[in-house]
Amino acid sequence: MKNGYFDSEKREFVITDMYPRRPLLNYLWNEEAVCETDQFGNGYAWMSIGTQRRKIEAGDRNLYIKDLDSGEYYSANRNYNRLPFDKHEAHVGLGYHTVLSEYKGISAELTLLVPEETPAVLYKVKVKNTTEGVKRLGVYFSLYPKPALSGHDSYGTGDYSDTLGGLLYSHDGFRLPNDYTKVFVGTVKAPDAYDVAPQRFIGSYSGNHAPIGVETDRLACDGTTFESNYIAALQFNVTLGAGEEFENYFCSFAARNEDECAEIRAKLLSDGAFEREMATQREIGEKTSSVITINTPDDYMNHQINVWLKRQVSLGKTWGRLYGKGFRDVCQDITAFVSFDPDLAKKRIMHALTYQYEDGNPIRMFEPNFRYPYNDGGAWIPSAVLSYLNESGDTSILDVELPYLVGDSYERASIEDSFIEEPYAAGKRRDSVLMHVRAAIDYLLGSRGEHNLVLWRGGDWNDSMNNVGLENKGESVWLSIATVKAINETQEILRIAGEGEELIGYYEDKKNELKKAIKTHGYNGKHYIYGINDKGTRIGDEDRIFLNPQSWSVLAGMDEKEDMLSAMAEVEKRLKCDWGYTQCSPSYLKGDPDIGRVSYFVKGVFENGSVYNHGVAFKIAADCILGEGERAYRTLKSISVDNPKNSDSGVEPYAVTNMLIGPDSPYLAGYAPMSWITGTAGWIYRAITEYMLGVKPTYKGLTLSPAMPRGWSGVTVTRRFRGETYNITFKASDRAYIVADGKEVGILPLSAAGSEHNVICNYVEK
Amino acid sequence: MKNGYFDSEKREFVITDMYPRRPLLNYLWNEEAVCETDQFGNGYAWMSIGTQRRKIEAGDRNLYIKDLDSGEYYSANRNYNRLPFDKHEAHVGLGYHTVLSEYKGISAELTLLVPEETPAVLYKVKVKNTTEGVKRLGVYFSLYPKPALSGHDSYGTGDYSDTLGGLLYSHDGFRLPNDYTKVFVGTVKAPDAYDVAPQRFIGSYSGNHAPIGVETDRLACDGTTFESNYIAALQFNVTLGAGEEFENYFCSFAARNEDECAEIRAKLLSDGAFEREMATQREIGEKTSSVITINTPDDYMNHQINVWLKRQVSLGKTWGRLYGKGFRDVCQDITAFVSFDPDLAKKRIMHALTYQYEDGNPIRMFEPNFRYPYNDGGAWIPSAVLSYLNESGDTSILDVELPYLVGDSYERASIEDSFIEEPYAAGKRRDSVLMHVRAAIDYLLGSRGEHNLVLWRGGDWNDSMNNVGLENKGESVWLSIATVKAINETQEILRIAGEGEELIGYYEDKKNELKKAIKTHGYNGKHYIYGINDKGTRIGDEDRIFLNPQSWSVLAGMDEKEDMLSAMAEVEKRLKCDWGYTQCSPSYLKGDPDIGRVSYFVKGVFENGSVYNHGVAFKIAADCILGEGERAYRTLKSISVDNPKNSDSGVEPYAVTNMLIGPDSPYLAGYAPMSWITGTAGWIYRAITEYMLGVKPTYKGLTLSPAMPRGWSGVTVTRRFRGETYNITFKASDRAYIVADGKEVGILPLSAAGSEHNVICNYVEK
Repeated sequence: MKNGYFDSEKREFVITDMYPRRPLLNYLWNEEAVCETDQFGNGYAWMSIGTQRRKIEAGDRNLYIKDLDSGEYYSANRNYNRLPFDKHEAHVGLGYHTVLSEYKGISAELTLLVPEETPAVLYKVKVKNTTEGVKRLGVYFSLYPKPALSGHDSYGTGDYSDTLGGLLYSHDGFRLPNDYTKVFVGTVKAPDAYDVAPQRFIGSYSGNHAPIGVETDRLACDGTTFESNYIAALQFNVTLGAGEEFENYFCSFAARNEDECAEIRAKLLSDGAFEREMATQREIGEKTSSVITINTPDDYMNHQINVWLKRQVSLGKTWGRLYGKGFRDVCQDITAFVSFDPDLAKKRIMHALTYQYEDGNPIRMFEPNFRYPYNDGGAWIPSAVLSYLNESGDTSILDVELPYLVGDSYERASIEDSFIEEPYAAGKRRDSVLMHVRAAIDYLLGSRGEHNLVLWRGGDWNDSMNNVGLENKGESVWLSIATVKAINETQEILRIAGEGEELIGYYEDKKNELKKAIKTHGYNGKHYIYGINDKGTRIGDEDRIFLNPQSWSVLAGMDEKEDMLSAMAEVEKRLKCDWGYTQCSPSYLKGDPDIGRVSYFVKGVFENGSVYNHGVAFKIAADCILGEGERAYRTLKSISVDNPKNSDSGVEPYAVTNMLIGPDSPYLAGYAPMSWITGTAGWIYRAITEYMLGVKPTYKGLTLSPAMPRGWSGVTVTRRFRGETYNITFKASDRAYIVADGKEVGILPLSAAGSEHNVICNYVEK
Repeated sequence: MKNGYFDSEKREFVITDMYPRRPLLNYLWNEEAVCETDQFGNGYAWMSIGTQRRKIEAGDRNLYIKDLDSGEYYSANRNYNRLPFDKHEAHVGLGYHTVLSEYKGISAELTLLVPEETPAVLYKVKVKNTTEGVKRLGVYFSLYPKPALSGHDSYGTGDYSDTLGGLLYSHDGFRLPNDYTKVFVGTVKAPDAYDVAPQRFIGSYSGNHAPIGVETDRLACDGTTFESNYIAALQFNVTLGAGEEFENYFCSFAARNEDECAEIRAKLLSDGAFEREMATQREIGEKTSSVITINTPDDYMNHQINVWLKRQVSLGKTWGRLYGKGFRDVCQDITAFVSFDPDLAKKRIMHALTYQYEDGNPIRMFEPNFRYPYNDGGAWIPSAVLSYLNESGDTSILDVELPYLVGDSYERASIEDSFIEEPYAAGKRRDSVLMHVRAAIDYLLGSRGEHNLVLWRGGDWNDSMNNVGLENKGESVWLSIATVKAINETQEILRIAGEGEELIGYYEDKKNELKKAIKTHGYNGKHYIYGINDKGTRIGDEDRIFLNPQSWSVLAGMDEKEDMLSAMAEVEKRLKCDWGYTQCSPSYLKGDPDIGRVSYFVKGVFENGSVYNHGVAFKIAADCILGEGERAYRTLKSISVDNPKNSDSGVEPYAVTNMLIGPDSPYLAGYAPMSWITGTAGWIYRAITEYMLGVKPTYKGLTLSPAMPRGWSGVTVTRRFRGETYNITFKASDRAYIVADGKEVGILPLSAAGSEHNVICNYVEK
């Protein structure tokens, strides 16, 4: 594998490439903090408690080692100066991250983790003399704490606190938006020297590659004030005999006062605390991983499903998109992580539904709140709720009463493209979750334009098509199709809830009405258009095709099969490239204010013609629904990091990216500047497990409807579901039928909790 | 002189210290752009046209030189790797900045300037082979352009444009706050290669000290997109025989479209354009410098007055405080630069007065507008207007009709500590400048509390005492004293305007009423207190003394001389330290919400107990008024960069700082983190010229009232004033009297424009 290898036993990816095309990122987090790290252990850390959000660290973390006899020094984790290290590895683990290096007889280890319950970063440092002689070393641990909560440098100080046993940074200002005015960097062992001022430790004219403080015998041991940046640098002078090692632990966190610093430090740096946290992280990872285990001929896919996609989805499950909790993003993530954490899924559904306005339309993003009037939020609710019902079999959620967000989405909408800092306020209306689902659908059905299609307003899934409907005239064909899908799901929920046929029939009529409008105004004879804007212009008609309306026509199960097949054939013809399928083609070449941001994006980038993988994942699912397992698999592999036709996309082998720059771009085509923060992870996870392997929960039990790639007979899947364990083997056969525990079945048996079932799923290879 | 030397002939300061305590800054600017540079030529550049404000550059500028035979390379201006250069000098000139270096037989020059009329930076580069042999060199010029106008990297591209002859960066987005969506870096000579992507030129894992692009034979010659940062790197391969040199010119600027890029580039890079701009800058500098020339025993002071303070004041004259135009700051700067640019002073007065609300109170800051309800703005208006009348003798300004800013300062005040992005809107009321002055005073007289002192509201000169009066109860003693001073000035304006004694008498009564209230409630028997806050607490009473109320009692000419003398004696006793006088003592140790920001500042920093030089400059003027010239001089030297007791404050020898960290700070005491951006420059300029040397313009003509340091007999001053030139010699004598052109006079004679007058000013040494 590019950049390193998977260690199945330890559930690690080991990065052996010190200088990949771009930094390979990893995230460590708990409910209140996130720590980013690359292959060097470098990145930021921040925390968020309620509405109080702040950075803890930003800038490089370093473990400098200096030979006190020769004066030579280097960063053991970062190797700025491209020295010929004997070894450099980053072990991307489940909830921890270790950087190992060896150089000139010194082995060094830097391990980071975010403990389960405290918003902090914990560090373990180990330096070992692997030579036969004695080594006199200076060991320096440094990081960049971020105490500032305002632009007033005058509020700030930093110094070592003997009482607290670490470096204390204060920013006790007037009218601050945050109570966490201290940042503390604690050390178990008392340092021989320290510094807090970058201009002394790094030097005003040097950089992290050559810190002048390390060149002196002893750090300044002084505090500082009025800095816009601080450093935490701790020096330990050690003499190590042959085979001896130095070990120490550090923590960094923000707190409200010194007492809190003392309390948190005591907890985090107590004896054995680091190892206990490591064990906890491993446990959490194992529990998540064991829900579904696959064994296919595609080793890389096995790693993805068994470990890594779950981890990426888990980041979203806690943090949304890090910059905030997009309503549609949260709903989609729920449909993926519900399989390994149904209790949390329930909690997240209930939380999200309180951000639905009283008119039924949800806010675009919460925490922080972003009120641009996107119109698609409600279309994502039914699938989230249904996925929970299907996974858990627990219908009690439907009766839970929840408030709506105060106001009306039309009144409260802000067309300013900016975030609204306003605390959550519940409206007067309260309803059961079931009624929240119906309110979402009723809103969409009521929000329609002159062609009877759903209004576009501020935009839909395509966030960047953000000026097509602000006059409340433009209509979205994609959103109309998504509404059809959402009504399907709502009808299923109503059936599970035991509602009568009258109500279900009411929605059936509405759905048919909508389908008719889509057929009449949204299908051009070859493919589905994207919509009709405020000015009446048809978008994505002959001149340009968009991916999502085509794939979603399949996901929604539109009536006309030949339309869908034609649409999907157009996708193959017009959107395919060597590294996937573009979101639209051709790209916009010129900004159009009646369309919005997407048309201003550079060609081939983001929603304007990139391979936008979230959309590609929808397409994979659609292929599977159409029985095109082989095409689905080829599509999956084309966007994958192991695609030989796009062999250096920059993506971490253990993560998926939202975007590969498209073929229309004259620059960086095929490159992925980002990863991790995307709903793509959840959809790829579901596309493989639920659509390709076809292991799909329903309210009555697990069903199997595979759309296998060619030659995959013999694939096995172990799935835990409502306390049962299913050991499933897929066999290519003349006839599709399922045998569970010796009997032919439709739905897999649900017996006493804790049973294990052996299942053979015979499928017909296409 | 520390860090380098003054070159009087070229009017340059030459920095010979490559690595001073902190970077030594210089600014280059015109009406629409500002370029910052340090001793290496590094800093940002930005532009502002109307309300459209944007960065052009940020990050290091570099002239890398690579020996193509050995492969060795370095930055000739920046020397990141501390190589043993034979020479490194920065020539801080009037409107240009040159960095010279010599290393291994190669001399290099990088000169920056901002042309007079275009918002751009111009660069000249020269590389010379000073050896006897032939040198094959790669010459690389690089800088960091800042095309981004939003967080959407998808809008961005950068590439070389053959048509335009340079590197073009675009950020053509949707709903941008700025029309200047292009940044262009032009070159006269076509490069051999180029790059725009930092990850290729610098490398994802390297830094400016070791750009990987320079290590290759040829830069990538490719464009890029979706970057959060771009670089402009241009490679020229040259073969230089003995004594031969390579010369080229570059420009960087923002523009609205490619046509505009072409047009501006053509103008800036035309033949001889750079040299013409250099000549223009020199001319501007000379014109400013020649207004007053002094020759005292203090060489450093001579340099300050003859050249550098004028330059620092000139930055403020155009750009306010760079982050915006503080009303009080603009008014104060006017009183200083009026001597060398009265026409502009008039323009600035007229502009500022349109930011006075309809109730007479001005806004705290404009462009951008900051509406926190500070109450002192009006107290600075009369001195600005009077200084213009005195310098120019032109009373026509008093009749100019100007609108007020729409609204009422109470209604429009925002106690949110934030900037209001709102375009200027004129109110209905229009008045003459004379009435604007009166409106300011009438506002202050009407804005009074229960002790008959002027209300504090959001604060006064002490910006950080910002929560003492928001309930409209707290009263400021300092502001009351400042109002007395402002009434003095207003009365003088009224006399110049020929207003009757009735009106002048009306203000006399009001002033006496105010003086009485100050004496009764604002003087504690030893010194003036600072004020009484909303809660009725007396601030700066026994426990703590503030500098400004004491010095301003002298500037305002309070009636009781013994009170002033006692107050100033307390200043000597309680506020003096080795590097000046602190703004208050003791510093606050704990935040007090009924006082505001100042009490939360770290002790010894900013208004909380630092040596805040703006205040020290007031004190120097006050000393002079009391005839304490020697004490004034000692005070001046204590805050000066040549104070041997504070020999490494960090300050540029050619600039003054607003703050030296005070003795109460446990860290960095005596250090000046900043400089340039301060009203201190104007007040030091005036304290020396008008108060110490006593060359003071009045409406009727120039007056002389020196308060000389001891032993300064023989000092000469040349002052241009209303077309006349006065060559003044100061002589210590038994009796104070002035002889001009052979006759004893009170006011210096004003004859035909263009006359030269020889003046002897006899003074009595104290």
